[in-house]
Amino acid sequence: MKVAKFGGTSVASAEQIKKVASIVAEDKERKIIVVSAPGKRSSDDTKVTDLLIQLGETLLKGEDTENELQAVLNRYEDIAEGLGLGKEIVATIEADLRERLQFDRNRPGACMDLIKASGEDNNAKLIAAYFQSIGLNATYLNPEDAGLFVSDEPGNAQVLPEAYEHLKALRDRDEIIVFPGFFGYSKEGSLVTFSRGGSDITGSILAAGVKADLYENFTDVDSVFAANPNIIDNPVKIKKMTYREMRELSYAGFSVFHDEALFPAFRNGIPVCVKNTNNPSSSGTMIIAEREYFMNPVIGIAADEGFATIYVRKYLMNREVGFGRKLLHILEDEGLSYEHMPSGIDDTSVILRQEQLTEEIEERVVARIQEELQVDDVYVERDFAMVMIVGEGMHNTIGISSRATAALTRANVNIEMINQGSSEVSLILGIHASDADRTVVELYHEFFGGAEETVQ
Amino acid sequence: MKVAKFGGTSVASAEQIKKVASIVAEDKERKIIVVSAPGKRSSDDTKVTDLLIQLGETLLKGEDTENELQAVLNRYEDIAEGLGLGKEIVATIEADLRERLQFDRNRPGACMDLIKASGEDNNAKLIAAYFQSIGLNATYLNPEDAGLFVSDEPGNAQVLPEAYEHLKALRDRDEIIVFPGFFGYSKEGSLVTFSRGGSDITGSILAAGVKADLYENFTDVDSVFAANPNIIDNPVKIKKMTYREMRELSYAGFSVFHDEALFPAFRNGIPVCVKNTNNPSSSGTMIIAEREYFMNPVIGIAADEGFATIYVRKYLMNREVGFGRKLLHILEDEGLSYEHMPSGIDDTSVILRQEQLTEEIEERVVARIQEELQVDDVYVERDFAMVMIVGEGMHNTIGISSRATAALTRANVNIEMINQGSSEVSLILGIHASDADRTVVELYHEFFGGAEETVQ
Repeated sequence: MKVAKFGGTSVASAEQIKKVASIVAEDKERKIIVVSAPGKRSSDDTKVTDLLIQLGETLLKGEDTENELQAVLNRYEDIAEGLGLGKEIVATIEADLRERLQFDRNRPGACMDLIKASGEDNNAKLIAAYFQSIGLNATYLNPEDAGLFVSDEPGNAQVLPEAYEHLKALRDRDEIIVFPGFFGYSKEGSLVTFSRGGSDITGSILAAGVKADLYENFTDVDSVFAANPNIIDNPVKIKKMTYREMRELSYAGFSVFHDEALFPAFRNGIPVCVKNTNNPSSSGTMIIAEREYFMNPVIGIAADEGFATIYVRKYLMNREVGFGRKLLHILEDEGLSYEHMPSGIDDTSVILRQEQLTEEIEERVVARIQEELQVDDVYVERDFAMVMIVGEGMHNTIGISSRATAALTRANVNIEMINQGSSEVSLILGIHASDADRTVVELYHEFFGGAEETVQ
Repeated sequence: MKVAKFGGTSVASAEQIKKVASIVAEDKERKIIVVSAPGKRSSDDTKVTDLLIQLGETLLKGEDTENELQAVLNRYEDIAEGLGLGKEIVATIEADLRERLQFDRNRPGACMDLIKASGEDNNAKLIAAYFQSIGLNATYLNPEDAGLFVSDEPGNAQVLPEAYEHLKALRDRDEIIVFPGFFGYSKEGSLVTFSRGGSDITGSILAAGVKADLYENFTDVDSVFAANPNIIDNPVKIKKMTYREMRELSYAGFSVFHDEALFPAFRNGIPVCVKNTNNPSSSGTMIIAEREYFMNPVIGIAADEGFATIYVRKYLMNREVGFGRKLLHILEDEGLSYEHMPSGIDDTSVILRQEQLTEEIEERVVARIQEELQVDDVYVERDFAMVMIVGEGMHNTIGISSRATAALTRANVNIEMINQGSSEVSLILGIHASDADRTVVELYHEFFGGAEETVQ
């Protein structure tokens, strides 16, 4: 069986939901359908989730919520109408929302979660109703009834191991299950949402729970691309990639997936397929455990900005057992997590995301390094970008780093840092943020210049 | 004024000592002469220091020392004879040695130091006597009388700050001072030797103490070479290099200097000149604080073998604040010092000198990393080499890393690790030890292929 998740744009309107229905209808294996809240119908549209946040904030301010409530209901009315459903479903949704608005306002976190999550929850009810109306044997299933139990951390719920036990039972259901994404329930019965990209997480958890043969993630792009389409005109489509490649790329700014959403599927070895609701015949991108790579050692190029470097120099540093540990301990004390730590003989630099490094923290860290480590020199530089070249074959293919660095030379970009050797699937180049786009373009041409339309 | 140090081969025979005398005579600025013990006269010869170690060991065993003593005296007799000196000086040396042999054998460390150090001490007396015999106004000076006070760590003496105060006075002496290298005295008056390369350290300390204009280090090569002459046929001579470059190169296997010998001169900004006793007209290699580098950003290439990698992988490692610190803490507990720690998103590898990593320690470290850090994977790989490309200009010169990696591609060498970005003066490439020589050759041709006989 397959678990299929449909993102916000895939369920934003009646027209879109009809596409979803035909996708579901055409493959009997698609037994569990996870849906998001209605997303944007056009670039200037507002997501239902954002309307719900406005509703929640008005409620928490203690102001009248009627207008905000109507704004939300209007979206569902449009959809229901377009799908030829009666007034009944909208009445159900209105009743549900009005009940949520009665929730204890002295628990703002839980209250906001409850209201936000209604976007997915009610959309699932509506879509289930539509499926039934066109003769599909479908039913809405509430996460609590399904036993999707999570930790009680509003906005950052973590699935509890026992949840998988409960979800396993869903394998035996005959009907198509329409399941709302984005939230679960604590053992105490309160609704708790996942972090951003939460519907991807729900789909991934369900796929793991029912041991699905495939987790289909329907979105509005044909596939994952080898580079950011905002920088490269119609970049190569990736046909097949590994979890590791996906993770390295999404770390470095690829936004297809919420970074950890894949984890449950990944840990259970369930393949993931990214597909386009608006072009379901396109094969999309398969994300799997292993792939052959001799044909194309490099699968994608990504860049992420906003990095800073703390540079430290001390004569005979490399003789001083414990220096690196003490240095990292200071950062840890200040709650800083670091990305890389290239080290020479008498110097080391720590590369970290600079949004962590407020002026105040920077001052304190620099002062502590000076005093506690008695260094000869310590300073901070900002506005670096990390460019990542990712591919399973990289580690065993001679010449990758030479091609990459040659490309940067052509682009007249100075390489501030090279990090190869830790990850077997990526080469990381540190450059000035202002050079990032130019670098990605040049690297793309180097590694995909001659490529046909798809890789792997 | 200049401090000139002459190494073992420069003072190994009468013939060599005559060369030293003419070098000293020809420049009035050469006021302080630091000498080693007589070294090898030919490749199959034995250094006096090694004869003295045999003498010391025989003594500590409580056996008869007459033969070993004679072996040492014979060397001095040959030299004295060759220099046309009377029996007197040899008698002085014999008396000195016989007195040392009376030292308390229950203090083996101090006893061995006392006997070893006699090699430099007596050679200084002999050379001073010769200088006088040819009319130079020269005198032997004992480190204790000069106030060269050190910490009481036999074989690893550290100079005490106050020593510099005492040594300053030497500026005012008119005569040429002949000073034995390799040892100083503790505040309690016992003789203590420096670590290996100790005469270089003595020279460096004296140069700093008298604020010399130049510290000349006379050895048996014309200069420092851009690469190991055992791998590259007559490599380019380095005319000028900075302390930083010298230090990075000597770290990576360049054996011109004992790693830390330069420190006192370096801290006092005293330029160092490496010259050849057998060819004093050759300008040698100057080691200075700064140099212009636009002409040749790369000054030398060195390789060092015997490195191991501890590879660690854990999903979401980069989210785990404190992971790196905990990892380094485990190594520290086991007394391991590391060289580099390249890190990816979910993995990090620690590169260290493998002689530290006994099977027993490896087992324990791997087990601890597994248990205490709950990693997904951890393993050790051995027999890597670190190849270092060194040059002040590297950091600001576009294309260095691209030329370097291209060279390795041509040599068909797989790059296991690249470390650039910490040190401004070096690029470090991790490769399999078996590829090291091939790599150095290819890199040498890349960066010095077209070079004239000398750089800078």
